[in-house]
Amino acid sequence: MGSNVSITTTEGGVTAPQGFRSSALHAGIKTKTGALDLAIIAADGPASAAALFTTNLAQAAPVLTSREHLERSGGIARAIVVNSGCANACTGDQGMADAAQMAAEVGSALGCRPEHVLVASTGVIGVNLKMGALVPGIRQAAQSLARGRGGDAARAIMTTDPFPKECAVTVRTPAGWFIVGGIAKGSGMIEPMMATMLGFLTTDAAVPPDLLAVALREAAADTFNAITVDGECSTNDSLFALASGASGVAIDGESYSALLQGLLAVSRELALAIVRGGEGATKLIAVNVHDARTREEARQVARTIANSPLVKTAVHGADPNWGRIVAAAGRSGINFDLRKATVHVGGVLLFEHGLPHDDAAPQAAEHLKGSEVSIDVRLGTGGGQAATIWTCDLTAEYIRINGEYRT
Amino acid sequence: MGSNVSITTTEGGVTAPQGFRSSALHAGIKTKTGALDLAIIAADGPASAAALFTTNLAQAAPVLTSREHLERSGGIARAIVVNSGCANACTGDQGMADAAQMAAEVGSALGCRPEHVLVASTGVIGVNLKMGALVPGIRQAAQSLARGRGGDAARAIMTTDPFPKECAVTVRTPAGWFIVGGIAKGSGMIEPMMATMLGFLTTDAAVPPDLLAVALREAAADTFNAITVDGECSTNDSLFALASGASGVAIDGESYSALLQGLLAVSRELALAIVRGGEGATKLIAVNVHDARTREEARQVARTIANSPLVKTAVHGADPNWGRIVAAAGRSGINFDLRKATVHVGGVLLFEHGLPHDDAAPQAAEHLKGSEVSIDVRLGTGGGQAATIWTCDLTAEYIRINGEYRT
Repeated sequence: MGSNVSITTTEGGVTAPQGFRSSALHAGIKTKTGALDLAIIAADGPASAAALFTTNLAQAAPVLTSREHLERSGGIARAIVVNSGCANACTGDQGMADAAQMAAEVGSALGCRPEHVLVASTGVIGVNLKMGALVPGIRQAAQSLARGRGGDAARAIMTTDPFPKECAVTVRTPAGWFIVGGIAKGSGMIEPMMATMLGFLTTDAAVPPDLLAVALREAAADTFNAITVDGECSTNDSLFALASGASGVAIDGESYSALLQGLLAVSRELALAIVRGGEGATKLIAVNVHDARTREEARQVARTIANSPLVKTAVHGADPNWGRIVAAAGRSGINFDLRKATVHVGGVLLFEHGLPHDDAAPQAAEHLKGSEVSIDVRLGTGGGQAATIWTCDLTAEYIRINGEYRT
Repeated sequence: MGSNVSITTTEGGVTAPQGFRSSALHAGIKTKTGALDLAIIAADGPASAAALFTTNLAQAAPVLTSREHLERSGGIARAIVVNSGCANACTGDQGMADAAQMAAEVGSALGCRPEHVLVASTGVIGVNLKMGALVPGIRQAAQSLARGRGGDAARAIMTTDPFPKECAVTVRTPAGWFIVGGIAKGSGMIEPMMATMLGFLTTDAAVPPDLLAVALREAAADTFNAITVDGECSTNDSLFALASGASGVAIDGESYSALLQGLLAVSRELALAIVRGGEGATKLIAVNVHDARTREEARQVARTIANSPLVKTAVHGADPNWGRIVAAAGRSGINFDLRKATVHVGGVLLFEHGLPHDDAAPQAAEHLKGSEVSIDVRLGTGGGQAATIWTCDLTAEYIRINGEYRT
């Protein structure tokens, strides 16, 4: 079926698929006047819903609430409500009550059960939501849902991300076409105590909840779960998917790959935008590991290289420092024979048979001066498995952003 | 026995124990005229020997050579030869031949078998040793071994460490007294492609090789293996111990703890000096994790916090950012109940019952302005196990040091 599917970029984001409306406004959580800090993404009727949440033990109230709502609803949701400016994390019982009230207010306005509303928050940790401002905001936002306003939602979920992130694709299949859209915010922890990756995907394909959950997990593995800015994982990280069915194209086992391709295309673009907008980042780095025994081993080697501060600073300095790449791979915990491994930077061979090719260093240094960098490590195990992790360079700006005193 | 043992600091370093001599000179590996780059530490006769080496898959030729010599000799050594300025790592068959020749030259000069000589190197990776300069240097150094010159050896193993590291202690036991001394160099990877932690411990206690190996491993677990500057692990990391027996104090099962206390005292001081001299470091941070189920779990939580760039930048900025500490503990992979956990910074309670104590933040911020910082996380598992990891803050200077182009 794969060859009969075509994917093309289309206008918009989370409301590009049929059957979705959104609204965004300034409720007053952010102190800056007029700054959008509240968004609702609503389906016209009950939609299939799936989500992935942070694996951190410290899970924010909205994460716990959304997880519980998805369990109780059996994977059906009508809307997602999200605020920025306050993460509602480490806020105890009051935080749980506030997250529940956010869902209840949306349910009341849209005429659906509270457990059909999912909740997300991003912003400062350890501070309670200003419910006196948020509740009137939610009521007003629920009255002004519209199509074509996904861009405002993309802005309303930003904390200190340098730019909004939205995209959509049209997926054409023999059985008809459907759209996948999405918005995301990155780990722009520019204000200390802020931290969160949030992603919201929508599609007008008709997908049973179980299949949507499988597709979301598979798409995230090579996109949202294949990026790293600093190896940190927040209390609020969440990725949601809603499927309205409004296109009339039904997804089953046979057409599953078309849905997956659509989710992958949108997720990949949003995930790479998060890395490009990483704190202090000036370069997008693709770390590709080839010829591992398993994909998981390839991922672990790639992740160790991608999180190595020595590799990230070397890339920042346009230094083709293969020694740091070899040393990071060597401490990844994955077994391989260094004498069979090779390292390329920008396609230039720098290390082979256990020995450097330092004559090629100037050519690799030229590649590193660009804004998109590739590092390729071939482990030579004969297993043939590969994986990619995307990251950014580590700069003095990252230190400045994260080292300033909070109060 | 512990209560009958007293430990007092004494003068000197690696030649403070009886039965050891050292020499150091400029052989010509470092380009700077007169910079010490070669040292020999020699016992007056066959000594018990033990060592710990990097767990990195990419192991330098001197590591492979020393490991093999220790196996062949059954834990007996007469001398250690070490050069700085060139790591002899990723140097293939030529590198192995060069390391073997270093040992052979010392053996020839001292009249012992080559496998009774251990080898260490630190400096640039991927470059062959200048044997034309090193071999005459080794011959000359072997002729000028003396007591009381351990300070020169401490300087000769530096690459771009900000200061030399040596210390010694006298251990008094009911059966007599002995001395433990040592020198070390840190992970001052100030010149790109440089990387290595090296430690050399000596004692004049009489210790069988097997017991020395056990004591070295146990002492390192809470000292050299409990520090981290940036989570990187090099190709050359090595820690050696030699025991001459010249004090006449024999170590057996009963007096083992006296030896361990001596090794711990010296190892701890050297290890903390490495962190203080970490790249760009301005603060020494002790991350103490309490009440874990096992020591290994306590270590894993402490290590995750100690390697968190967000925690390290917050400490640099004197920001008592308990949220980053909680988030790092939460993603460590160790299971615990956040509501039973507490976080103290400088002894000030900042997080308890899942909620912040932000009123105490200014007091904690004052503590963070000092040069020695403590972070205490109590997991509340009821297991009662604890561990400490030492690290340093992450500064813009680290980025500058590691981000400059190598050529």
